[in-house]
Amino acid sequence: MDLGMEMARTEISLRISAILVLVLTACVVAFDTQTKAIIFTIEKKASYRDLYALKILVYVTSAAAGYNLLQLCKYPALAYFGGIFKGSYMIVAWISLLLDQIMVYVTFAANSATFEAAMLGVTGAEALQWMKVCNKFTRFCIQIGGALLCCFAASILMAIMASVSAYKLFRMYSPNWFLRLKTK
Amino acid sequence: MDLGMEMARTEISLRISAILVLVLTACVVAFDTQTKAIIFTIEKKASYRDLYALKILVYVTSAAAGYNLLQLCKYPALAYFGGIFKGSYMIVAWISLLLDQIMVYVTFAANSATFEAAMLGVTGAEALQWMKVCNKFTRFCIQIGGALLCCFAASILMAIMASVSAYKLFRMYSPNWFLRLKTK
Repeated sequence: MDLGMEMARTEISLRISAILVLVLTACVVAFDTQTKAIIFTIEKKASYRDLYALKILVYVTSAAAGYNLLQLCKYPALAYFGGIFKGSYMIVAWISLLLDQIMVYVTFAANSATFEAAMLGVTGAEALQWMKVCNKFTRFCIQIGGALLCCFAASILMAIMASVSAYKLFRMYSPNWFLRLKTK
Repeated sequence: MDLGMEMARTEISLRISAILVLVLTACVVAFDTQTKAIIFTIEKKASYRDLYALKILVYVTSAAAGYNLLQLCKYPALAYFGGIFKGSYMIVAWISLLLDQIMVYVTFAANSATFEAAMLGVTGAEALQWMKVCNKFTRFCIQIGGALLCCFAASILMAIMASVSAYKLFRMYSPNWFLRLKTK
C-alpha cells in the first residue's frame, strides 16, 4: 500500500484516540464532586476548583483535544491548498512537529503536576503540616486517580504521535548533507 | 565539513551542557537549607528532605546527568566495536533515541511535579487548609525556584538532544518505503 496513505491513516487513528482519551480526562476531572458532612449540618463539597492544578489539568486537556481536532483538518486543507502553494507539505510537517512536541510536553507537565498534588493529598506532608485529604474524600480521590491514568495514556499517545511526525519529516532529508532534501 | 563529525560535535556539546546544568540543579536543591526560630529556642530546619518531590528531583537530575555521561562514552565504544559488529550504528541510534526520549520525559515530569509542590508552598491551598510555607522560609524557596529554572533549561537541552537523535536516525530511512534504509 502507498506509504503516504498508510502514515496518514496511522496519524488519524492516533489523533482520534488521543482526542477521546483527552476529552474523557477533562470530563472525569470536571464532573468529579463529593459532598461530606463535617460537623452535623456543616457540609463541605470537594470539586476540581479546590485545587489550582486540577483546574489547569481540565484546561490543558481540553486545549490538547482541540489542537488534535485542528490537526485532523490538516489533510483536507493540504488537499485543497497543496496544489496552490508549492512546498507547503514541508512547512506543514515542520509546524506539525513543533506543535506536537509542545503539546505533548504541556500535557505531560500538567499531568505530572496534578500527580504531585494528588500524592500530597494522599500522603500529606508532615514537615509542612499539610494534612491528608484523601481519607475524607476517598471517592473523589479515586476518580482523580482514574483521570490521571487517562491523561497519562493520552500523553503516551501524543508522544508516539510526535515521533511519527518526526519520522515523517526527517526521512525527507539526506543522510549525507545537513538539512538538504533527498533527491530520491 | 563532514556531516557525521558536525552532528557528533553538536551532540557532545549539548550533552556536556545538559550534564553541567543537571549537576547544578541537583547541588542547588541538595545543599539548600534554612534554619528559622519558631518560638524562642525552638528552631525548625527546612531541607530538601522535607518534601518527597524535592528528593525525587535530586535523584532524577543525578540519574539524568549520569545517563548523559554514559552516552558520551558511546563514541569511543562505537569507534572500537563498530568494525566488529556490522549494523551496530543503527542499533545504537535506535537505543539512543528511545533512552533520550524516556530521560527527557522523566526529567520534565520531576521538574513539573516539583514546580507544583513549590507553587503550593508559595500560594497554599485554602480549600485543603494547606498553609503557605514560603513566607517563613523565603530564602529556601527562592533557591528552589532557581533550581527549577535550571532544571527547566536542562529539560529543554535534553528535548533538543532527543530531536537531534531522531533526526540522526530517521534521515537514514527512505521517504518512499516504510522503515527501509536509503540506498543513497
